[in-house]
Amino acid sequence: MNITFSAYIATSLDGYIARPNGGLDWLDNSTDKDSKEDYGYHDFMTTVDCLVMGRSTFEKVASFPEWPYQGKRVIVISKKMNQAPAHLHDRVEFFNGKVEQLVVELQSLGVRKVYVDGGFTIQSFINAGLLDEIIITQIPILIGKGISLFGDTKKDHKLKLLQSRKFDSGFVQSHYQFLPSSARFFD
Amino acid sequence: MNITFSAYIATSLDGYIARPNGGLDWLDNSTDKDSKEDYGYHDFMTTVDCLVMGRSTFEKVASFPEWPYQGKRVIVISKKMNQAPAHLHDRVEFFNGKVEQLVVELQSLGVRKVYVDGGFTIQSFINAGLLDEIIITQIPILIGKGISLFGDTKKDHKLKLLQSRKFDSGFVQSHYQFLPSSARFFD
Repeated sequence: MNITFSAYIATSLDGYIARPNGGLDWLDNSTDKDSKEDYGYHDFMTTVDCLVMGRSTFEKVASFPEWPYQGKRVIVISKKMNQAPAHLHDRVEFFNGKVEQLVVELQSLGVRKVYVDGGFTIQSFINAGLLDEIIITQIPILIGKGISLFGDTKKDHKLKLLQSRKFDSGFVQSHYQFLPSSARFFD
Repeated sequence: MNITFSAYIATSLDGYIARPNGGLDWLDNSTDKDSKEDYGYHDFMTTVDCLVMGRSTFEKVASFPEWPYQGKRVIVISKKMNQAPAHLHDRVEFFNGKVEQLVVELQSLGVRKVYVDGGFTIQSFINAGLLDEIIITQIPILIGKGISLFGDTKKDHKLKLLQSRKFDSGFVQSHYQFLPSSARFFD
């Protein structure tokens, strides 16, 4: 059975997903709140049955007024945290282990498409050769320093461009597939 | 009189222009030597009447069998070097000063469009608020570490996307204009 691990994330043009303190003001200020453009997010989410994220991404999402992942399995990878805030306790599961092990478990559960979110988690999947694809939306701003999307990947990873499109906002979204040298094969 | 400072450069998807040692093998291996596709380079060069580059970029170019900038003014910014190899002595000029001063000199010489090349030189122009536009060609590979295109820009720089196009090779080329908050005005 196939299982696909996908990241969908925005970066500054200089490759950061957040300021050093986690701030996203540069991203929020670049988006038009009145625009109906969602940069393919809804279409992407309809293909996803599971999310995997790190603790800090979870904490950000947990602070939203509404839980955005209704009906989807959500796994939080954390060494420290194993319990959600009371209002979310039946919404998330915690995992404290290696991503390779998580991948096997999700596959045995019949999960088909996993949204891998958060910088550290994405890096873990890439470095384990487990990320299948990434959709990067580049925001036309340089922020100079911050939390890098890719970090030090230790080795080269070649990708295949599947699609690239520009938006009126100046965002450029490119969809890449990781090539086999750096992907795992389950089948 | 208007003078425009433009960068035209390739980066890995993780934002590096070269490996830590300056290596470009990842770039050379990504291009099809038999392809006639030049990613807009020739068209760009026909608009350029002057190049400004750092010493290490110059040394790379100086090692080419043929001088590629025939008929164009070439300025090498260097604190250490003030003389070219004998076969190039009438091809380049050296400049040892601040980019702000160079900009004034080039303007007084009637230069119209300057190709700013090399990571350190591009960063100097950005940080001085003097770069007008940048054409970035992103290669679909992560190399993990290297010489960053932008480095620490110290402050935010907003850009406007003028054009973005994808190529059969998987390269994505985006043309950005620096917005006025970070650009200088001569006029």
